[in-house]
Amino acid sequence: MLLRVGCVCKKGHRFLLRAFSCGVAMAKSKFEYVRSFETDDTCLRNCYIVVRLDGRNFHKFSEQHGFVKPNDERALALMRRSAGCVMEQLDDVCVAYGQSDEFSFVFKRSTNWFKRRASKLMTHVASQFSSSFVFFWGEYFTHQPLLYPPSFDGRVVLYPSNRNLRDYLSWRQADCHINNQYNTVFWTLVQKGGLSTTQAEERLKGTVAADKNEILFSEFNINYNAEPQLYRKGSTLIWDTAEEVTTKKVKPANQSEREVHVTRTRKKITTHHCDIIGSQFWEEHPDILESD
Amino acid sequence: MLLRVGCVCKKGHRFLLRAFSCGVAMAKSKFEYVRSFETDDTCLRNCYIVVRLDGRNFHKFSEQHGFVKPNDERALALMRRSAGCVMEQLDDVCVAYGQSDEFSFVFKRSTNWFKRRASKLMTHVASQFSSSFVFFWGEYFTHQPLLYPPSFDGRVVLYPSNRNLRDYLSWRQADCHINNQYNTVFWTLVQKGGLSTTQAEERLKGTVAADKNEILFSEFNINYNAEPQLYRKGSTLIWDTAEEVTTKKVKPANQSEREVHVTRTRKKITTHHCDIIGSQFWEEHPDILESD
Amino acid sequence: MLLRVGCVCKKGHRFLLRAFSCGVAMAKSKFEYVRSFETDDTCLRNCYIVVRLDGRNFHKFSEQHGFVKPNDERALALMRRSAGCVMEQLDDVCVAYGQSDEFSFVFKRSTNWFKRRASKLMTHVASQFSSSFVFFWGEYFTHQPLLYPPSFDGRVVLYPSNRNLRDYLSWRQADCHINNQYNTVFWTLVQKGGLSTTQAEERLKGTVAADKNEILFSEFNINYNAEPQLYRKGSTLIWDTAEEVTTKKVKPANQSEREVHVTRTRKKITTHHCDIIGSQFWEEHPDILESD
Amino acid sequence: MLLRVGCVCKKGHRFLLRAFSCGVAMAKSKFEYVRSFETDDTCLRNCYIVVRLDGRNFHKFSEQHGFVKPNDERALALMRRSAGCVMEQLDDVCVAYGQSDEFSFVFKRSTNWFKRRASKLMTHVASQFSSSFVFFWGEYFTHQPLLYPPSFDGRVVLYPSNRNLRDYLSWRQADCHINNQYNTVFWTLVQKGGLSTTQAEERLKGTVAADKNEILFSEFNINYNAEPQLYRKGSTLIWDTAEEVTTKKVKPANQSEREVHVTRTRKKITTHHCDIIGSQFWEEHPDILESD
Repeated sequence: MLLRVGCVCKKGHRFLLRAFSCGVAMAKSKFEYVRSFETDDTCLRNCYIVVRLDGRNFHKFSEQHGFVKPNDERALALMRRSAGCVMEQLDDVCVAYGQSDEFSFVFKRSTNWFKRRASKLMTHVASQFSSSFVFFWGEYFTHQPLLYPPSFDGRVVLYPSNRNLRDYLSWRQADCHINNQYNTVFWTLVQKGGLSTTQAEERLKGTVAADKNEILFSEFNINYNAEPQLYRKGSTLIWDTAEEVTTKKVKPANQSEREVHVTRTRKKITTHHCDIIGSQFWEEHPDILESD
Repeated sequence: MLLRVGCVCKKGHRFLLRAFSCGVAMAKSKFEYVRSFETDDTCLRNCYIVVRLDGRNFHKFSEQHGFVKPNDERALALMRRSAGCVMEQLDDVCVAYGQSDEFSFVFKRSTNWFKRRASKLMTHVASQFSSSFVFFWGEYFTHQPLLYPPSFDGRVVLYPSNRNLRDYLSWRQADCHINNQYNTVFWTLVQKGGLSTTQAEERLKGTVAADKNEILFSEFNINYNAEPQLYRKGSTLIWDTAEEVTTKKVKPANQSEREVHVTRTRKKITTHHCDIIGSQFWEEHPDILESD
Repeated sequence: MLLRVGCVCKKGHRFLLRAFSCGVAMAKSKFEYVRSFETDDTCLRNCYIVVRLDGRNFHKFSEQHGFVKPNDERALALMRRSAGCVMEQLDDVCVAYGQSDEFSFVFKRSTNWFKRRASKLMTHVASQFSSSFVFFWGEYFTHQPLLYPPSFDGRVVLYPSNRNLRDYLSWRQADCHINNQYNTVFWTLVQKGGLSTTQAEERLKGTVAADKNEILFSEFNINYNAEPQLYRKGSTLIWDTAEEVTTKKVKPANQSEREVHVTRTRKKITTHHCDIIGSQFWEEHPDILESD
Repeated sequence: MLLRVGCVCKKGHRFLLRAFSCGVAMAKSKFEYVRSFETDDTCLRNCYIVVRLDGRNFHKFSEQHGFVKPNDERALALMRRSAGCVMEQLDDVCVAYGQSDEFSFVFKRSTNWFKRRASKLMTHVASQFSSSFVFFWGEYFTHQPLLYPPSFDGRVVLYPSNRNLRDYLSWRQADCHINNQYNTVFWTLVQKGGLSTTQAEERLKGTVAADKNEILFSEFNINYNAEPQLYRKGSTLIWDTAEEVTTKKVKPANQSEREVHVTRTRKKITTHHCDIIGSQFWEEHPDILESD
């Protein structure tokens, strides 16, 4: 700390002010050692960094806000919108996948965003997603006010190979399928079959996937596989390049004005509700993953 | 996974459904190995866990939303409100301290909330704070709409002793003082002194704390130490027990109705804008810290 | 990398040498990125750093080398000697405690040795202990050659408070007591009581500490508490300052030669076999621990 | 802890023994909470785990033990022997590479040895290597006794892809080349050129690889590339399968005795001093690495 030498202190109380201020600056440098307690949590290089968010107490939240069962279009759309906001604000998310009240964001393996610091990555994702969720709420829930600010927790997981990453996403999509199938039968039994939730639960105890489809088909004439892909497959957000054509009027010297078409390629987020367990999606979008 | 044995498949396409469903369940268990890539980030026991949030790009954010300089009462109140919301939702925060666009949350050293998992703790704090910030925006910024969802990043730091923790909080409060003093002079020079921001910056180059107070006092007749404590000391939120007296009407058998006063002690958050570097605050609130 | 410009290459094959050498240097810098995969494992400041070593497969090792049961004086002395060697070579170990085939080394909470890097600390302790164990083997096992190089594994544990550290050491000493008591009765039953190891095991099943002492006392007239402290309490190594008096002959000018006594205080390791669970030991050696 | 109820205490002092013993057992369980301070340091799955050891103060050690400069055959052979001992004792090391006073051990990416716990892996390697180094010393340094037990420090680094791992090994081999070339010229200037070590250092300042080869060739008629591969390339240890033919005498019933050849394939360590930067070595030994 620099101390101005020879300063004239005309008034006692100002001298005290000065002494006090210097004291605080000195104090600050004295306290600054506490920074050395921070730890480095850099993510291992050349690994995909996945940040997965989960809604906290969303079972209760969904009831309090009158979510349609088993799938609420508004809530799913709001989740997608918030996820898109994360992708736009945070660099280097190459793919995001969401279902139910969870969303996974995959940072590309070569990312150096925030120096790959795990805490920065996950808190920024959690924060941006949460503030977006509240911010855009009204656009989707036009007649249902938000009663209180919800919360999402997050975690970071690293995947060293493309195979591991794809298996991670497959795991989440398989989970989506299993839960959605269960929920579809369960709420059909309740809403159309007139069972209580306890009875529906009882009915489904011990059934395997095939049994559930059978119940839907033979009792309610519902072909599970004809249900919307959005419900069965979840939402996959990726970056696409889109050609954007704009028309400009130009007037060269000594010529009459005319229209010119300007084509720009621009990155934009696209949403897919298809299978990502098989190879087709990845073959159609070879730029998402980097080679091992 | 259980496979129902001997099931009769009357229709081919349903058999396919069944096979497909089983396949997905099998796939899920096949993919589940990816869970083993998650790492344990349990915080060392018997240490204070500090989660500090910082606004992302808040310089720009404050300009876009017309924050009053050097201190915007509305913004500071909204920060406090959001911090209070974090304390109410998340157990075991024993003290929180905020200034400018940052807020630190101290979990008590014996907390077992979320099994002391660093990622859960920091993402929940970041998420709850962010969603609250957007949720309560309108209460404080009545004439200024929120233009986009803001973001806060967070980190976790552990402090093993009471001394270390108090030094951490002192560091942040000393930082508050130094920044606020600079900002007060800087904006006074601009707003009252008619200097441009570049000129004000130039003028303050190389000055120490005492010089800044002198400028305020001799040129603008402002005694820095008489500035609101809120600006100079930041905000400290703690839990207090309050006695709550409610009046109930009771009518015992064979007696006439009468009023009864019921006293309950209830935990509630109180906000302080005092010095927390010295001992007085800690002596007056001996329950905040636990013995080493 | 610098490339010498304009070098004259008189002979083709030397040109190749040069090219090759440059190539390797270039290659090295090309490969050096792999260093960025190293992670920081700095131990949290202001915590005691404990490195505990355990012998690998020492049950088998002790049988192959004819260790006396239940306690082999030579092996215990060799363990102490190796531990002393660790303390002399590695700075800032303030106390070490050993029993059976394990030894714990406590680095003082303020140590900055190896920048508090956990990997450096534990590998150095493991390495120095192991090489010392082999190096000094012959001094203690004069008639029993070492058949193969043994191995010890290690781990690092941090303790934030003096209470936690003392509880750690108490835990190890209580473990020493419990194991030694069991082993003493077990081998007495085998060696003096003529039981097979299976019979001895059977006999002790379900007995508590008091029962074991009773067996020793009533059947073999052994008072467990009169057994050597070394066995019951393990070994605690600390630094002590010792006054060392040396005699020097000096001959001042114009005087006759005479002897002078030079007193130097020197740090040296002392070994204790006393209780370290209670307060007495710590009160008698107040310099071992630093204040919280 | 079980307390035997109704035990008959014939003698006062034995009752005290009993009470004391119970006390210690109780104490142990009371202290056991300290185990919860241990942290999980499991290595990320599907990554190669490299443990690299470095000699501590080996410059001084090599002088005190009269190592031949620039390369001591005995020391290098002892390093290889110790490394081989590590490979034999510790499962799942797929390749080890050593040069000078360092050795790297690569655990295969799928290893589950010691549950992939970093601390266990590195301390075991450091310990086994160090005890082997002392144990086998006399076999290589027949006329030079070991003066004191040496120490090696270790670290763990993870590599997610085959490319990264090969680049790591290439980095170490390029380092070997650069250091060995420097040392070869340096010691030639000193030993054959009659320069002091300071003069030799001065002479080499600013030279590039090509210059060094030129000095060797034109002044001492030494073709660096004809120097032993061991020095220039270091030592690579891998597992090979060897066919082992043993001859047994068998005597079938009612037949005369005859000899039978029994062929067994057995894993054994082989040592290579070849280039491992290029592809050839890896193509010739496709089993070392696992697919990404």
